[in-house]
Formats: sequence, structure tokens, C-alpha cells
Amino acid sequence: MSDLHVYDTTLRDGAQQEGLNLSVTDKLAIALHLDELGVGFIEGGWPGANPKDTEFFRRAQSELTLRNATLAAFGATRRAGGRADSDPLVRALLDSGASVVTLVAKSHGGHVERALRTTLAENLEMIRDTVTFLRGEGRRVFVDAEHFFDGYRTDRAYALEAVRAAAESGAEVVALCDTNGGMLPNEIADMVGDVVGATGARIGIHCHNDTGCAVANSMAAIDAGATHVQGTINGYGERTGNANLVTIVANLQIKQERDLIEPHRLAEATRISHAISEITNVAPYSRQPYTGSSAFAHKAGLHASAIKVDPDLYQHTDPKAVGNDMRMLVSDMAGRASIELKSRELGFDLDSGSEQDKAKVARVLATVKDLELRGYTFDAADASFELLLRRELDGKLPDFFDVESWRVITDSRGEQDALSEATVKVSAAGKRVVQTGEGNGPVNALDHALRQALASAYPELADLELVDYKVRILDTEHGTDAITRVLIETSDGSTTWSTIGVAANILEASWDALLESVTYGLIRAGVAPR
Amino acid sequence: MSDLHVYDTTLRDGAQQEGLNLSVTDKLAIALHLDELGVGFIEGGWPGANPKDTEFFRRAQSELTLRNATLAAFGATRRAGGRADSDPLVRALLDSGASVVTLVAKSHGGHVERALRTTLAENLEMIRDTVTFLRGEGRRVFVDAEHFFDGYRTDRAYALEAVRAAAESGAEVVALCDTNGGMLPNEIADMVGDVVGATGARIGIHCHNDTGCAVANSMAAIDAGATHVQGTINGYGERTGNANLVTIVANLQIKQERDLIEPHRLAEATRISHAISEITNVAPYSRQPYTGSSAFAHKAGLHASAIKVDPDLYQHTDPKAVGNDMRMLVSDMAGRASIELKSRELGFDLDSGSEQDKAKVARVLATVKDLELRGYTFDAADASFELLLRRELDGKLPDFFDVESWRVITDSRGEQDALSEATVKVSAAGKRVVQTGEGNGPVNALDHALRQALASAYPELADLELVDYKVRILDTEHGTDAITRVLIETSDGSTTWSTIGVAANILEASWDALLESVTYGLIRAGVAPR
Repeated sequence: MSDLHVYDTTLRDGAQQEGLNLSVTDKLAIALHLDELGVGFIEGGWPGANPKDTEFFRRAQSELTLRNATLAAFGATRRAGGRADSDPLVRALLDSGASVVTLVAKSHGGHVERALRTTLAENLEMIRDTVTFLRGEGRRVFVDAEHFFDGYRTDRAYALEAVRAAAESGAEVVALCDTNGGMLPNEIADMVGDVVGATGARIGIHCHNDTGCAVANSMAAIDAGATHVQGTINGYGERTGNANLVTIVANLQIKQERDLIEPHRLAEATRISHAISEITNVAPYSRQPYTGSSAFAHKAGLHASAIKVDPDLYQHTDPKAVGNDMRMLVSDMAGRASIELKSRELGFDLDSGSEQDKAKVARVLATVKDLELRGYTFDAADASFELLLRRELDGKLPDFFDVESWRVITDSRGEQDALSEATVKVSAAGKRVVQTGEGNGPVNALDHALRQALASAYPELADLELVDYKVRILDTEHGTDAITRVLIETSDGSTTWSTIGVAANILEASWDALLESVTYGLIRAGVAPR
Repeated sequence: MSDLHVYDTTLRDGAQQEGLNLSVTDKLAIALHLDELGVGFIEGGWPGANPKDTEFFRRAQSELTLRNATLAAFGATRRAGGRADSDPLVRALLDSGASVVTLVAKSHGGHVERALRTTLAENLEMIRDTVTFLRGEGRRVFVDAEHFFDGYRTDRAYALEAVRAAAESGAEVVALCDTNGGMLPNEIADMVGDVVGATGARIGIHCHNDTGCAVANSMAAIDAGATHVQGTINGYGERTGNANLVTIVANLQIKQERDLIEPHRLAEATRISHAISEITNVAPYSRQPYTGSSAFAHKAGLHASAIKVDPDLYQHTDPKAVGNDMRMLVSDMAGRASIELKSRELGFDLDSGSEQDKAKVARVLATVKDLELRGYTFDAADASFELLLRRELDGKLPDFFDVESWRVITDSRGEQDALSEATVKVSAAGKRVVQTGEGNGPVNALDHALRQALASAYPELADLELVDYKVRILDTEHGTDAITRVLIETSDGSTTWSTIGVAANILEASWDALLESVTYGLIRAGVAPR
């Protein structure tokens, strides 16, 4: 494995993106995905600067178990005129429990004087004092040299001085930041080469995409001697975004044969990129290199005939290397192999190679493709996928109950909170039940009514709890006339599962996902139809 | 002006994008925008290969008046074993009336033998014959050397032979194509430099974005001697798209001071990019360099305070150069400075430094912080933020109508689709109205009922349309007991605005966002309370 640092800043710099707001729970979930992808470092946020990030690091200490990655806390050099050991924000970095601290430091004289409003000398002292203090407390320290390249252009000597101040005080890496994103690859290469030669420091690179060159700039810096690269998943970030870390890693690994992360982890990149989109609720960019849904999709008739001869004539790499698919040949998400794998996991062995098994896989694949065309996605709905498999392979699902009808009323009067009330009519264990449930929202009311209606036939359902609910509007052309996709996560106290519903009506989609959740819960608990 | 060719292929290669389908009328409208932008060449399509493109060139002859650009027809070298002068597709190029013909030619031996299924020698003859014939007919001829770089890697001598065959027969430009998009800048630079030296031909570059490097690859080729660059508006194109022509031009012109198009035309780039999005019906990518709606948007409070001191400290170029604007996003990361800036953007000047202004800013900041703690976010809800500012600064909003109550019923029976029906009771213009509206979802029904109820008092509302609806559950610990955040985007046909609602009940949140949308729409239309 290469010793190049793969440093992810999705949770800090990526979160600066317009419209992207992450809860602490979101951040913990994304960190697990990043760890699975195999990045070396996960920058979790700025503890002390805002309560959410402080809370993230607090919860991470007990709730987040990372297998590959090291968690880094982001912060700034101490205040001008103060002392690092008594600076509350520097203290908060220690309290975060992170073993790596990444300090943003000014390296551009104009920014020191006009934005920070201190002297050039004091800024260097702030770097030395803060790095020295944190090293003394046993932390690994990385320094982000903010506005480095713009600073280098206006005052090379001072920019180099800032790098030296950090390195000589014990910073392990000094990452040069193209904070405003205006650089082009050739300039980056020249400047990074010069800094490596002139300072001897370990140099990192942090780019933004304002000239459309974030990936190329990062790679130019690495060619010139940088051994630490920062970026974000899906290129999230302020303005035009940060450098897309997956694109950089895939380029380095696939095109330049550098071993950065294990190939089986890179092969999860597409799935992880999409899973993180579900958490951020930012629609995935279909034209994203390597992991976009269109990245290996072929439309040109010219190409289609040639692709049959040899797919490699018309693709720049094997999409499987990043877990993507050539779209002309297989369905978007669920390839044959994943269906075989998932079936085996569930006790259906379809991997024998017999014609009968092949036909079954083809049938499941056709159903999945059809549903995906209609807006379903099974990446994030394991339980619905298992129900689909059981339905296709066994012919039907256990017949736990029948639904006659449901209705929800939500009303609001004056300044009072709106109230929702649902009535469901179902039959189970030979009995028809009409049950009304209340809730502070329509889905909540439906969930209460349904589980109460089934409670006497299936007391097992009392243990279930709805723990997450996600809504996505699929066709944004028509606003509320569009198709709605609902994902519901249910817990039975020990495990959780996810189900999906798709319909024009948001409540119908929610109801479908609720029914699948209850059915799955009963199968899982080993209950027989009554 | 530089003699570098700016060659747009939006109408041909860009149209290969998944989900992008252009009518002849669309193409004519886009061509006018491209002409206004100041590109040198507009590749209109492949006449003869499909009736739509034949029709485009036919209509262009009488309907399209270009002031700056030259129209180019795309086609292929003649069939193997035939003659250019009797090849119907070559004839169709002459019939198109275009003075420039761009011929795609193979330069990769493997593609000649396996996709084209002819000999290496015959392929060269096809190039010579077709170029010579078209030159003889008085056309300027450009040649696109397909798969050039992959071909160069496997057989440099043959790839160069293909370039020479084209140039020696009279092709004015040979554009080297990274058809599969897998190249990186350094390789491109080396290979282009070699081709320029070895053949003496005028070389062009055509890149795709599969490694995220289309812009950097194009610029590397230009650095190495290419004097013709191809790309598309908004980077449209197959898979990950073609090189974004506006990004390339802006980089060359702004960062490298090359005169490619007149500055007043570049200053129309953002408007033209968005206007073309309207025609293609592909949602604009907000993170697009230079022209994206987020390209000059700032969220971090850290930056906002410095931006007040000097905007150039935090932007890589003046957004006006490409017709874009700096925008401040208000969020929990932003502080006082971003509120002052945002207020100025909206026409409230709070920046006087007076105690009164400071107090107003402090009050707005406190309100924003309080609302954000409760789940609001204003960086994606400009219109709601403007209403908040007006409420805080003017003391109240115009009193357009009063809401007495609202109710939505959604029900489903058997296999039928669920139906939603909403009843609202409102007073406006001195009259109480009870109105029922239907919809295929509860929000749709509420929207219909509300706007119908207000229609007689405010006929202006008839023009409004809900164009996007986003739902986010904020605290995932409690599932449907959690807080729901709804963002609604509304259009009045010429502009759009976003409003937010936050409540435990998803329908209450939606209702709140609808009310803000209608209120904002009325203020925007200059309507007085009736």
C-alpha cells in the first residue's frame, strides 16, 4: 500500500455545501460508510465552534467504531495575542478525543492583515504555539495552509515561512489549500514542487473545483511531491464543491496503479456514494465520474454495435472496479451477481449454474429492473428486496392479514398544532378489525392504527418501532404531481430493517412501506400466519 | 483575438446525454444562444444519419442567422470499399449547406479492424478520399480522430499516419478525441506535443469527463500546441459528459488572459447556460464552475466576515465576468456579517454601523439562530429568509388573508390509488371562503384548495406553480415522531423561489411552506392586501 494519505473532509468542508445540513446521526452514519470505503482519515467537524460538532465527537467516542480510518478534529490556530494552552477552542480540540488535529492556519499575508487583523509575525507565532502545544499533548497535528496558492503568488517568502513554522513545530503534514479554487494544474505543480524542495515538509493538497480542475489540480500536486490528498465524497463542498475524493482515488489507483485502498473497497465506491446521497438528501449527480448512474451508460447507436464486439473498445475502465455497471447491458443497481449473493444469504441457492437457477435469477432481475424504472431502489431497502426475492422464488408471501381500506384525516384550527387521525380496516386471524389511531403526523397515525389493529392476532408487533422515515420526490419537473419514494426503517429492539414504498401519493407510498415493514417483522420473528 | 477555434458540439455530441432529447426547434433556439455567447463554430448534427438533423440543416438555411459562429455539419468518412462522391451520407453533408464539415475518422487500429471491420490501409484511403472530395466541393474540412489517444498508446505510428492522411488531403484541423474519456492531463500534453511536432498539422482537442479531467485535459492540449478546442454547454454529453466549453473559455480568458470571445459576451455566460437548461429541460447543476447557482455562494461564517472587508479575498474571480453573482447563504455557520450582506442583497441596508442597525442585525441573527435550532434552514429557502427579514425589519408582513382552518383527508380502498381531498377556510378581501380541492397527494390537494380559495381576491395566484417539493426528517432518533422540514419551490413562469416549513406534522410543515410561498408570490408581484 502507498503511504499517501487519503483524507476525507465530507463531514467538515463538504458540509459547507448549499442545501446540505447534517445531523449528528447523519454524520455518524456517513463516517461508517467512509470507513468502509477505506479512507485513511475522516475529518469529523470543528468541535467547540458549533454545538453539533462538539456533540458529534462526544458521541463518536462511544458510538463510532472505525476499522480503517482515523478520526480528525478540525480547528484553528489560537487567537492573536493569546496562548494556545488557554484558548477555549484549542482546548475543545483536546476534549474531542480525536488523535489527529487539523489546524487551519493563514499563509497569505493579505489575509493575515485584513481578515485576521494581526501581524505577519504574530500569525507565525500562533502557528508555532498551537502546533507545539497540541504535539505536547500527544496529538498528531496536520496544518491546512489556507489560501496558500494565492498567498504564494503575492508573497512566496511568507507563504513558505508559514509552512516552515508548522513543520518545524511538529506538524506531520502541511496541506496547501486552494481555498478560492482558482488554480490550474500547471501552476499547482510548479508551486508544490517548489514548496517540497524549499521546505522539506510533508506536503498535502486541498482543492476546490472553481475552475473545473479540482481533480487534475490534486493529481498535479501529487505528481509534484504531495503525499496527502484531501477531498469529499460526491465532491460536496461550498460553491462548486471540493475535489471529489473517489475520482482522485480511482484515477490514481486505476490509471496510475498506485495502491491506495484495497480493490474490494474501491468496488464499493458506487454503492457508498449513493448511500451517502440518501443520507445527505442531495440528489446524486448522474454525470459524476466513476460512480454516477450515467458514468458507464451508453446511448450512441454507433457505440452500441461496437460494444457487443468488445466492451473495452468503448469504456475507459471496467466499471466493476468502482462497483458501477455498464448500463446498456444490466440494470442500474441490481446485477446478476448481487442477486445470487443476496439469495444465498437468505437461504435460496441460485448459484448452481443450472438452467432453472439461471431462469430464476433472470426473472428476479427483470422484476427489479421493472420496479427500478418505476422509482424503486433496493440499495437502501434490504427488507423490501428480501420480500421481493421470497415472492419471486416461493411464488408468494405468508398471508398474515388482509387490508380492506385506510383513511387519514389531518386538520388544523387557528394556532393549534395539526392533528392526524387514521382509520384502518383489516382482517387477521379470521377477525375483521376497524381501528383508529392518532399521531402527530399522518404516517405516525397510520402506523399506530395498523399495529393496534393487528395487535390481538400478532402481539409480536408491539415490539416494533419506526425509527427512520425518508421521503424523496423523484421527478422534480412536476412538484407534488411527481412520484414519491418513501423509505422506512423499523427496529425490533435488536436489529433494524428498511422497506420502500413508491406512489404518486406520499401517504400511499408510506402505507406500502409500512405494510412491508410489518410483514417483514413477522417473518423475521418466525411467526406463522394466524 | 486569439485564433484558437472555440468549437461547440452541444447539438451533436452533447445531445448524446442520457435524458436529453432536442427537437429541431430546440436546436435552432440553442444555436442562437451559442452564437450570442460568441463561439466560433456550432456543430449542428449529423445530416443524413437521422431525419431530425437533416431537417435542422434544412431549416437552418432559411431560419438561422448567425452573427459570429459558423455552422458545421458532422459526418463520417465514406464506407469501406466505396467512393466518397457516391456515398449517400457524404452527399448529405454537401446537401446540408454547411460550409464546414467535420468528419469522424478512425485512428485506432483495433477499432478499424474490430468495429469498422476493414483494413488499416483502407481506413487511411477512406480518410484521404472523403477529405479530398469535400475540399474539391469547396468545403472547409475538420477531422475528428476518434479514439486517438487509446490508439496512440497501442500503435503510435498508425495513429500519426491517420492524422497525416487527413492533413495532407486538405483537412484544416485534426481534432484528437479522447472518446472513452480515460485520459489524464500529463499524458494528453505529451501526446499532443508529439503529434504537433511529428505531423505539423493543425491540432484540435475533444475531451470527455470520465476521469473528472475534461477541462484540464483540454487545457493541457492547448498548452501543448492544440489551437482548436471542442466542448459543450453545461458539459452535456454521454456518460460523464463532454468538456464544459464555458469553463474552458473562462479559464483561458480570465486566468490566462487569452482573448477568445469578447468580454461582454462572456458576461452573458451564466444567463445563456441557464437559458439552454430551460430548453434542454435538464436541471441546472448548481455546482457547475463559473455559471452554477452555487458557484459564488458563501455559507461559512468564517468567510462572511472577511468578505465584508474585501470580496476578492474569498473569490477566485469577479463573478460579473461570467454574469454570475456572489450570494450569501444564511445558515447556522453564518454570523452577523452574512446577515448584513444578505440584507444588502435584498435591499435592506443594515451596514451603516449605527447602533440601531447593529441592534436590528442582532435581532435577526437571534431569530435565525432560534429557528435553525428548531430545524429551519435558510440557505435553501431564500424567499422565507426574505419574509423573515421583512417581518423583523418592518415589524410585520402585508396582511393578505387569514386562515381559519384546514383539513386533508386521504383514503384508499382495495387496489385503487389513494385520493386526497383538502378543505380550507380562509378570509380575504373581506370575504370568508370555504373551498375544497382534490389532488393525487395531500400537499397537492392543499395547494389546490388554498389557491382556489384565494383566486377571486388575488387572481395573480393563478400563474403560480409548485415546481419542487422536498421533505427531510430531522431527528432520526424517533422516526415519525420527529420534526419534519419541507422545502417548496414555486415558479411564476419567469422566476422561482423557495420557502420552508418545519413542524412535527409533515402536512403542517407543508402548509406553512405553502403559505409563505403564496405570501412571497404576492409581494413579488407587487400586489397590495385587498
